[in-house]
Amino acid sequence: MDQMAKVKKQPRPKAETPKGFVDYFGADVRERNAMLEAIGKVYHRYGFDPLETSAIETVEALGKFLPDVDRPNDGVFAWQDEDEKWLALRYDMTAPLARVAAQFRNDLAAPYRRYTMGPVWRNEKPGPGRFRQFYQCDADTVGSASMAADAEICAMLADTLEAVGIPRRDYVVRVNNRKVLNGVLEVAGLDGDDKERERGIVLRAIDKLDKFGPEGVRLLLGKGRMDQSGDHTQGAMLSDEQAELIMRFVDWEAELNKMLTEGVRSSFLLGNDDYKRWLHVSLAKSLDRDAIDDPVQADELHNRMAIFHLRELVGNSVVGRKGVEELEEIAALLAAQGYGPDRIVIDPSVVRGLGYYTGPVYEAELTFEVLDDKGRPRQFGSVAGGGRYDDLVKRFTGQAVPATGISIGVDRLLAALRAKGRAGGTMQGPVVVTVMDRDRMADYQAMVAELRNAGIRAEVYLGNPKNFGNQLKYADKRESPVAIIQGSDEAARGVVQIKDLALGAEIAASASLEEWKSQPAQREVARDDLVGEVQAILDRLA
Amino acid sequence: MDQMAKVKKQPRPKAETPKGFVDYFGADVRERNAMLEAIGKVYHRYGFDPLETSAIETVEALGKFLPDVDRPNDGVFAWQDEDEKWLALRYDMTAPLARVAAQFRNDLAAPYRRYTMGPVWRNEKPGPGRFRQFYQCDADTVGSASMAADAEICAMLADTLEAVGIPRRDYVVRVNNRKVLNGVLEVAGLDGDDKERERGIVLRAIDKLDKFGPEGVRLLLGKGRMDQSGDHTQGAMLSDEQAELIMRFVDWEAELNKMLTEGVRSSFLLGNDDYKRWLHVSLAKSLDRDAIDDPVQADELHNRMAIFHLRELVGNSVVGRKGVEELEEIAALLAAQGYGPDRIVIDPSVVRGLGYYTGPVYEAELTFEVLDDKGRPRQFGSVAGGGRYDDLVKRFTGQAVPATGISIGVDRLLAALRAKGRAGGTMQGPVVVTVMDRDRMADYQAMVAELRNAGIRAEVYLGNPKNFGNQLKYADKRESPVAIIQGSDEAARGVVQIKDLALGAEIAASASLEEWKSQPAQREVARDDLVGEVQAILDRLA
Repeated sequence: MDQMAKVKKQPRPKAETPKGFVDYFGADVRERNAMLEAIGKVYHRYGFDPLETSAIETVEALGKFLPDVDRPNDGVFAWQDEDEKWLALRYDMTAPLARVAAQFRNDLAAPYRRYTMGPVWRNEKPGPGRFRQFYQCDADTVGSASMAADAEICAMLADTLEAVGIPRRDYVVRVNNRKVLNGVLEVAGLDGDDKERERGIVLRAIDKLDKFGPEGVRLLLGKGRMDQSGDHTQGAMLSDEQAELIMRFVDWEAELNKMLTEGVRSSFLLGNDDYKRWLHVSLAKSLDRDAIDDPVQADELHNRMAIFHLRELVGNSVVGRKGVEELEEIAALLAAQGYGPDRIVIDPSVVRGLGYYTGPVYEAELTFEVLDDKGRPRQFGSVAGGGRYDDLVKRFTGQAVPATGISIGVDRLLAALRAKGRAGGTMQGPVVVTVMDRDRMADYQAMVAELRNAGIRAEVYLGNPKNFGNQLKYADKRESPVAIIQGSDEAARGVVQIKDLALGAEIAASASLEEWKSQPAQREVARDDLVGEVQAILDRLA
Repeated sequence: MDQMAKVKKQPRPKAETPKGFVDYFGADVRERNAMLEAIGKVYHRYGFDPLETSAIETVEALGKFLPDVDRPNDGVFAWQDEDEKWLALRYDMTAPLARVAAQFRNDLAAPYRRYTMGPVWRNEKPGPGRFRQFYQCDADTVGSASMAADAEICAMLADTLEAVGIPRRDYVVRVNNRKVLNGVLEVAGLDGDDKERERGIVLRAIDKLDKFGPEGVRLLLGKGRMDQSGDHTQGAMLSDEQAELIMRFVDWEAELNKMLTEGVRSSFLLGNDDYKRWLHVSLAKSLDRDAIDDPVQADELHNRMAIFHLRELVGNSVVGRKGVEELEEIAALLAAQGYGPDRIVIDPSVVRGLGYYTGPVYEAELTFEVLDDKGRPRQFGSVAGGGRYDDLVKRFTGQAVPATGISIGVDRLLAALRAKGRAGGTMQGPVVVTVMDRDRMADYQAMVAELRNAGIRAEVYLGNPKNFGNQLKYADKRESPVAIIQGSDEAARGVVQIKDLALGAEIAASASLEEWKSQPAQREVARDDLVGEVQAILDRLA
């Protein structure tokens, strides 16, 4: 170390969370961990093995070099190490999986089922509720082309949602297929090599259905769309006929309504009874879901309508028909496992990610309502998504390896559990043993040790014990259920005071010791009965 | 997006873990998580609250700017964000705690007990077993100057080690105190402002006791030390008298042996009986620890000898005496909670970290023997350490806030559990349902769903089912306990074959289907009995 270097005095640093990041305290951490543990148990039962790669990958392995400027994409946090090599924080869990699947392809079981949980980092402009570090929880099967792998992922997703506390019928896993879209594009005459540009615009347009609505997508398929600032996005310039065909794929809700109101498209239904029941159910559904006498039957019919509709759209396209067959195969495999369309449904309205995936696409949506920022009810919405992507390790080895998987939005799912009252956002505080006599700390420590040995969360007050009011304020802030008080007189008589704070919380902040003692929620018990008496109060609260 | 930019074709990336990092698979992840969960339960019971900060901090907040060059220390992974601000990955859990304690000082309960678990990153040259990302698991109490906070941390550390599976007497938590060293420095005449340089050399020398041994430290206190490459490290140039005094502090083992062999320094023992017992115990101890008839008594005497020795060393130094008193107070508080010196002991041989901490210093050591790289037995050694550091948030607010805490070396502790057979390093694989008939996948899915619904880890083979041998190899690689086989004939008869792979693993890799079926470990059972029969095999294995 150079002792002669001039030491500059640093200004006092600011204590602040870096912009776009967030600190998680207490219940937030515990509840997320509990949720991840519950998810991990389901994944484990399905035969998935955990994998934990490091946060750092080479930018090369992430595939995040900007091709035109020889430096990493702005979207990742990247830096050069001492060998001039670019390193970066992972931005998702799929890129590290691809690297591991290529690197360890001779050691891993094939197919390889793996799950992983952990933070990912995005070097993006943060917004409200949008952070630059967040958790992902992924499960993928690498090396299986079988639709059984996709069906399994969907079943596991349904089981997972129930395991963390989302009741059946409060969620639905929707399944669509990219190959069906490819078939529609083919029927629309957009499958040729010379149509790559149009296809790109169409895929990007479809992906924006949630954002712009069907009208916005329709504009992007035609001449283009002007946003509120006046910026114009160039459209695909499709003919009306082409655009209509694609809109029939994109806007499943409109198609469904057409089927219902016209009431004439009954050829796909197996028989007349089915059709009558369908009409009854669909009418009931449009009024009130709970009024449906057999909702599973309704979902089953919904499945059939969707398949019928898609088969009609793809016409004679080979790839399109293959996509429809894959959807039917998934539905059949799920039915064999007891997962009906009340849990997992074929649904052409899933369009998100169709541009990225190569086969089946899944989305888990929560169907119960919450209030939005403006107090209006809205469906909670998507908490997980995924699909099949068959080029996983090709970038590394040149060999295509089929893979399929899902990613759960950990923070959104936790928010959903809170909205359902399945996670409280609070944590029961410890029993607080107060310090009346500073020189009898050993006695208080003995009490707290007894409580802890009985499995009771407990602590002794470790601040300056002089102001007793501060100790009570502390217990209040800690959300303690019980405070223990023993002055020298109580010690001499072999007793302690037990204060039930759940009953007396509201006066805790201001009460003097004498007022405190006079509260009915406070009782004197024998020192030897301390653990049993505290346990009795905790049992009552539980 | 600039469509006109020339797209350079990237070369195929290498699939490799970045240098100094490591990927964790299967059992490694599960066992670490299980261990961290057990640790978290103890911390929770002690009233500590979880905190999870993001991996990224400003370099300013980390305090890792090199003062002479206006750039971050090479030891951290750092980069500039779009505002030119330096960001970095945290290198430990204490710096983020200091930032949080300063930032949220008005919101957090005071004292604030927090624990945290997660990876930290060091931009250092990796070595064997030394990685650039590793886990830390810390617990700290911020805002309490009381020795009760230190005693509590030590008790919690002992409880934690037992909770994860280290039996009592296989570990010891040793406690020393920086103030005692300050007292010794004062007695040696090294306390003045003009002696800062000497004190620095002395502190660094003491910290290297493990590395260089007492002889090496002695050299560094005097003229200095030459290493094997011929490099000379300048010594503190202390007089023999000064150096001897400090060596009497540093080399507790030598001091203890002197006490034992001379057998004359008995004035510190309370009575003659104690002394006789001590002599008996110390002699027995020098032969064989197990031969001691009352080991707790022996440890208690060890404690008293240590206190006596330290009190003698610090003479009339006020700070030194304060340090000895703190050690006695910790010992008394622990005794009141039932933590005798068989678990937590006052031990002047703890010198690591004395340069960094300001009061009590702790170290948890595992005392059982393992074989080193060369097959020689050695004590497992340190798995956790910590101490009191009273300037935690001062850098941010100007106000000194007392704090004390520990950090557990997660990977070392996990290695210790494996050495003790408390963690296997392997994970039971799933039951594998094989695929005899490709078109009966729905039947196999139904079987696997039944098994999973009964809580049994199970999966269907998702690779190409054509080569049945590959399916058996797969089950073998997965360490499956049981394989299920059902061909069309078995299906027609309503039965399945259950193969107990724990009995038949050795032939799995090469057997044909017919050989496989002839094995005694394979039985035919009714399809309806599948779950019960599999459960029976798993119960036997458990």
